[in-house]
Amino acid sequence: MQAAILSIGDELVLGQTVDTNSAYLSAQLASRGIMTLLHQTVADDMQAMVDMIQYASERVELIIISGGLGPTDDDLTRQALAGAMGVELVMDNEQLPLIEAIFTRRGKPMPDRNKIQAYHPVGTTMITNTCGTAPGIIAKLNKATIYVTPGVPSEMKTMWDLSILPQIIKLAPSKRFIHTLKVNTFGRGESTIAEELGELFDRTRNPKVGTTVSKGIVSVRIRSEFETDAKAKTQLNQTVDAVKAKLGAIAYSTEDITIQEVLVQMLIDRKLTVATAESCTGGLIAKFLTDIPGSSSVVKGGWVTYANEMKVRELGVPQQMLMDHGAVSQPVALHMAKSAQEQANSDLAVSVTGIAGPGGGSDEKPVGTVWMGIADRKGATCRKFVFNGTRETIRDRTAKMACQMLRMRLLGEDDAAMTIG
Amino acid sequence: MQAAILSIGDELVLGQTVDTNSAYLSAQLASRGIMTLLHQTVADDMQAMVDMIQYASERVELIIISGGLGPTDDDLTRQALAGAMGVELVMDNEQLPLIEAIFTRRGKPMPDRNKIQAYHPVGTTMITNTCGTAPGIIAKLNKATIYVTPGVPSEMKTMWDLSILPQIIKLAPSKRFIHTLKVNTFGRGESTIAEELGELFDRTRNPKVGTTVSKGIVSVRIRSEFETDAKAKTQLNQTVDAVKAKLGAIAYSTEDITIQEVLVQMLIDRKLTVATAESCTGGLIAKFLTDIPGSSSVVKGGWVTYANEMKVRELGVPQQMLMDHGAVSQPVALHMAKSAQEQANSDLAVSVTGIAGPGGGSDEKPVGTVWMGIADRKGATCRKFVFNGTRETIRDRTAKMACQMLRMRLLGEDDAAMTIG
Repeated sequence: MQAAILSIGDELVLGQTVDTNSAYLSAQLASRGIMTLLHQTVADDMQAMVDMIQYASERVELIIISGGLGPTDDDLTRQALAGAMGVELVMDNEQLPLIEAIFTRRGKPMPDRNKIQAYHPVGTTMITNTCGTAPGIIAKLNKATIYVTPGVPSEMKTMWDLSILPQIIKLAPSKRFIHTLKVNTFGRGESTIAEELGELFDRTRNPKVGTTVSKGIVSVRIRSEFETDAKAKTQLNQTVDAVKAKLGAIAYSTEDITIQEVLVQMLIDRKLTVATAESCTGGLIAKFLTDIPGSSSVVKGGWVTYANEMKVRELGVPQQMLMDHGAVSQPVALHMAKSAQEQANSDLAVSVTGIAGPGGGSDEKPVGTVWMGIADRKGATCRKFVFNGTRETIRDRTAKMACQMLRMRLLGEDDAAMTIG
Repeated sequence: MQAAILSIGDELVLGQTVDTNSAYLSAQLASRGIMTLLHQTVADDMQAMVDMIQYASERVELIIISGGLGPTDDDLTRQALAGAMGVELVMDNEQLPLIEAIFTRRGKPMPDRNKIQAYHPVGTTMITNTCGTAPGIIAKLNKATIYVTPGVPSEMKTMWDLSILPQIIKLAPSKRFIHTLKVNTFGRGESTIAEELGELFDRTRNPKVGTTVSKGIVSVRIRSEFETDAKAKTQLNQTVDAVKAKLGAIAYSTEDITIQEVLVQMLIDRKLTVATAESCTGGLIAKFLTDIPGSSSVVKGGWVTYANEMKVRELGVPQQMLMDHGAVSQPVALHMAKSAQEQANSDLAVSVTGIAGPGGGSDEKPVGTVWMGIADRKGATCRKFVFNGTRETIRDRTAKMACQMLRMRLLGEDDAAMTIG
C-alpha cells in the first residue's frame, strides 16, 4: 500500500509555517510498512486542491489530508473534497450538537460560522474530534481511502491515534514484521556513544542500530525486521539488552519517556521529595518536574532567585560569599542547594547558578558556565558544567542535567558518567 | 506568475527529515510577488517524479526542484526530468572538470559514480555549484521554466542567491509586489476574532486577511499584493492599522515576537521589576520571563509553592485560609501575589493557583480552573479562568495569560478584553 499526504494552507506554501504534520504522518505510516509516495502542500486554492485530491486518488490507496477544516472562509478542504468527488455537502446531525456542546462547555453560544464544520461531502462519514471543533472526514474516491484531519498538530495526532490508525491497521495487514525501540540517553556526546556501541553499529546488522540527537538527548534507535512477529520481537529485545549493557546508567528510558518522567516516578516509588533553587534556569527545572501529572506528591516547590538580593533574602546566601566568589560559583551553588533542602524540608534539592547568555560571560566564566548543587539530608555536593549553544540550549541542557544528576544520586551512580558540559 | 516547489527524497516522505527548503523557497518567491501554488514532496520514485514534473509544468510558469542530484543510485531527479521532457541525458564537458577539481582539492580521486553528476537532459543547461559536487539544471517544459538545485539546504540557498534569483527577477516582468504581516493576539478565540474583523475577512479583499491558531495564539495574517512595491506596502499598513483598531489591546505583537518578549521589553522600558508566585504552573511563568535575554534587569525571581506547606511557610498564606477556601481560591491567589510583590520588593507580581490536571478536579473546581492574582505597590486584583485541554495546554495558556494580564495592567487596560478561559 502506498500513501499520499496533503497539507493544506496558505501559511505553509507561503513559508510562514514549516509543515511538521507531514513528517509525523510519514513516520507513522512507515512504521506500519506503508510508503508515502508524496507529500503535497497546497495553498487555500480550490482548484489546486481538487486537482491534487483527484491525482492522488488515482495513484495511491491511502490519502491523508490535514488542514483547512476551520470555520472561516479560507478553510476549503471539505468543499474541495466534495468537488473532487462531484457531490454536494450535507450536514451531519450527530456532529452539530457535539460542536455546539464545546461552546456550551465554554459558556458561549456557537458562532454561526462554526456550523460549516458539521458539513461533509455526501457519501462520506465524519470522525469526532475529541479536542476541537473540527470533525474529520472519511471518504472513498477512485482507488483511495481518504482521511481528512484538522491541521492543528495536537488535534491531528489525537485523531490519528484514536480513530485513523486503528482503521489503517485493518486496511493494510503486514507481511513483514517490524519492531522498533528507542533507548534515550543524556550526558554523553553522539560520537562517544557511537564508539561505545562498536560493532552493534554495523550498517548490515539486523536488528539495525543507529543514533539520532534531539535537544541534547542522544537516542539509540533499534529496528528489527523479520518474517515473524515473534522473531522480530525476540531479536529486538536481545539487541536492546546489548545496547543498554554498553551504555550503563546514562540510558534513562525507552521510547518517548522523558527524563523528568523517569525522575518523578523514581521519587514517587521511593516516597522522596525534592525542591529546587534556580538562578540561570529561572524556573525551568521546577517546570520540568511539574510537567508530570502526579508530581505534586513529590515536588515541594522551589525558589527562582534570579536577582542576587533574592539569593540573600530568600535562601540566606551570605552577601560576603557573593562578593568573594560571585553568584556563579561553587560555594553559592552549594549554599543554595542546602538552603532549599532545609527550608523546603525535602529529601533532595537541586540548585543551579550560571550564565545562560548571550551577555554576562567572561574569560574566567564563559557563557554556558553552570554550577550545579545536589543536596540531601546528609549534605551537598557540587559540579561545574560548561554547556555550548544559545541561551535556550544552555538552559534546556542545564535542566535536563539537573534531572540526570538527581537520578544518578538516587541510583548511587557516579556523576562522572556524564561527560558533556 | 505562479510557482511549484518539488522536494525530492525518501528521507522527506518517510518523515525522517522535515522539509525546510520548501518554506525557504516559498518565502523567497512570495517576497518577489510569485505565489507558490503547491509544494510537492516526492519519494525517490521515477514515475512519481515524472508525473509531478509534467503536471506542474502544465499548471505553473516556474518550478523549483530540490534534491536527488547526488551520485548514488537513489538520486533520480536528472533522469526523471529527462523522462518528463522525453529526451536523453548528455555529459556536460564544462562541469565534469569542475567536479573533478573538488575531489583534487580534497586530495582524493573522483569516484566513478560522481561522473553522473555532470549529466543533464539534452536541451537544458547546468548551473555551477560553488559549494558541492552537484551542479544545478535549468530546463523548459510546457509553460514552465524549471530550476533544479541540490537538496542540501546550504548548497540550495547559495545556488538560489547566486544563480537562480537573478534570473527569476528577469523572468517575472509583469511585476507584482507582495508584502505580508502577521499580527499576534492572545486572549480571544479564533471565531470571535473572525467575527470582530467582519468585512476585513472578505476572501476577495486585497490586502487579504486570514487567521491561524498556534498554541492558543490567534494570528491575523495580512497579505497585500499590488503592481507597485510602494502601493503594496501602503495598503498593507492601512489594513494592519484597521486590523489592530478592531482587535484592541489583545494584539500584542507582529511577526514572530512572543508575548514574553513584549512584556519584558515593556518592563525594561519602564524600569519596572516583577516577581512570580506559582502553584499549578510550577515555574513556567518565571521560565517564560527569563527566556528573554536581558530579563535579569527586571525579573527579581519568584516562588514555586507547589505544596501547601510552601505557600504557608514561604509566602505566609494563613493555614486557616487554605482550610476555609482551598488552595485554588481567590483569597489565596491574592495573598500569594501580594506576598510575592512585597517579599521581592518588586513593582509587580503575578500569582497563579489552579488545577492543571489530569487529576484533582471537582464539579465546583474542574480541571483547568486557575485563579490569577496581579499585585503592584498599591494592591492586588484577581481573576478566575477555566482553561480547556491537557495539563500541558492548561499550563501553557495560564503562563501566556499571566504575561497578557501583566501587560494589560501596564497598559491600564481592562482585563475583560480577554474572553477565553
